[in-house]
Amino acid sequence: MAAITLIGSGNAATALGRALHKAGHQIVQVWSRSEAHAAQLAKELNAAPTADLQNINGNADIYILSVKDDAIEATAKALPVSGKILAHTSGIKSKDLLHSSGRYGIFYPFVSMTRDAETDFHTALLMVEGNNEETLKTLAALAQTISDRVRQVEERDRQSLHLAAVFANNFTNYLYTVSEQLLAESGLSFDELRPLIAAHVQRVMEQSPGQLQTGPAIRRDHSTIDVHLDLLSKHQNLKELYSLLTSSIQDIYPTT
Amino acid sequence: MAAITLIGSGNAATALGRALHKAGHQIVQVWSRSEAHAAQLAKELNAAPTADLQNINGNADIYILSVKDDAIEATAKALPVSGKILAHTSGIKSKDLLHSSGRYGIFYPFVSMTRDAETDFHTALLMVEGNNEETLKTLAALAQTISDRVRQVEERDRQSLHLAAVFANNFTNYLYTVSEQLLAESGLSFDELRPLIAAHVQRVMEQSPGQLQTGPAIRRDHSTIDVHLDLLSKHQNLKELYSLLTSSIQDIYPTT
Repeated sequence: MAAITLIGSGNAATALGRALHKAGHQIVQVWSRSEAHAAQLAKELNAAPTADLQNINGNADIYILSVKDDAIEATAKALPVSGKILAHTSGIKSKDLLHSSGRYGIFYPFVSMTRDAETDFHTALLMVEGNNEETLKTLAALAQTISDRVRQVEERDRQSLHLAAVFANNFTNYLYTVSEQLLAESGLSFDELRPLIAAHVQRVMEQSPGQLQTGPAIRRDHSTIDVHLDLLSKHQNLKELYSLLTSSIQDIYPTT
Repeated sequence: MAAITLIGSGNAATALGRALHKAGHQIVQVWSRSEAHAAQLAKELNAAPTADLQNINGNADIYILSVKDDAIEATAKALPVSGKILAHTSGIKSKDLLHSSGRYGIFYPFVSMTRDAETDFHTALLMVEGNNEETLKTLAALAQTISDRVRQVEERDRQSLHLAAVFANNFTNYLYTVSEQLLAESGLSFDELRPLIAAHVQRVMEQSPGQLQTGPAIRRDHSTIDVHLDLLSKHQNLKELYSLLTSSIQDIYPTT
């Protein structure tokens, strides 16, 4: 079992802290910019809270940084510890932002983390990197205590997964928001769409989405597309988006 | 109970035919361009099959046209019946395509219909229109035998629902396909994303998507956006799509 200090108290730090604590590791300290947040999470994890990076002690083996991407490097440099392993949990940033420590790496769970509900790490891909063999092994061993799917993933592939998740979750959510707005403009509720969304996503869980494309774009149903563009005439940006998505679909499904 | 003839044998005709048959209506004839398809569906519904529109008889009260949008008008004109109600099941086309009959309307269930599984019409919005009061009442009464949520919906609103569904299902499916392709290029599987998609859509079932937006666009995380655009450098069209979706998200969530 390892001694771990958590730098951060957001969704990732909270979810990871709970999973590591539950797996039997000792959480030594919890840092947050907010004293209240540090105290709350530290209490839950039987750890000591602090809102001052200068108060971070050297009693942990591994320091997990779950702070905003742009704060990783400065936070790492401000930690008054040496000879310890630092790891950050970003899907996009290089481990080399932690080079101020001699031993550093990545600890990136590919799962939606929230402090509101328990996160299941066991079935989640947990990506690790290390700046040397020993650090990689230590982080992988830690990862294996909470996930059955630990994998060493190179930076470029980790970034590709992150990018794919932006298309699959963030951008799709925006399209749901567009639907909600279009329905509201007709006095209709997004509730009308929820059963259709659920039914379609159920199919995506079992089949390749590339095999599930339907709609006027792939059918080259130009008269329907014209009606849709006309309905969007007051929304120039949505009209542009509709056209780009339609032509993109037609590009990958050539007419037969 | 009504006597109904189905013009078409695709997903909509099959799902509707089964539901109407189950509700106790008589299915008189089933027409399909394909004799085999007509025979198969007619057998299931205890109806007479035909592949020739000229063989359609006047023994039904209501003729439901579930053919391709562009075939609705010509198919209606070719029907050798008079004084009967015609209704089509398109989400986008005007009922007036059926004007060759004196009594016509819309019978549009807002649900994903497939011949592979039973479709639950009871909880689905079923939109009706009629060219006069009596026709509207007849179609609404028929609709109420299979759906608890029958509503008279004007053409423009029906089209808006159809458009919203294109954003929420067809376009999101394309984004899943993009994710799948990006992962494949890194030797990774779409399986890695499925749990994240399921978790997010579960939240969309319960909350407004407008409240669930996350990701680099809304966070104005420009360094992550730059990494993503760089990863897409070989895909000019995806780069354009990424940029448009990102700026669209930023437009509806102004910086605070």
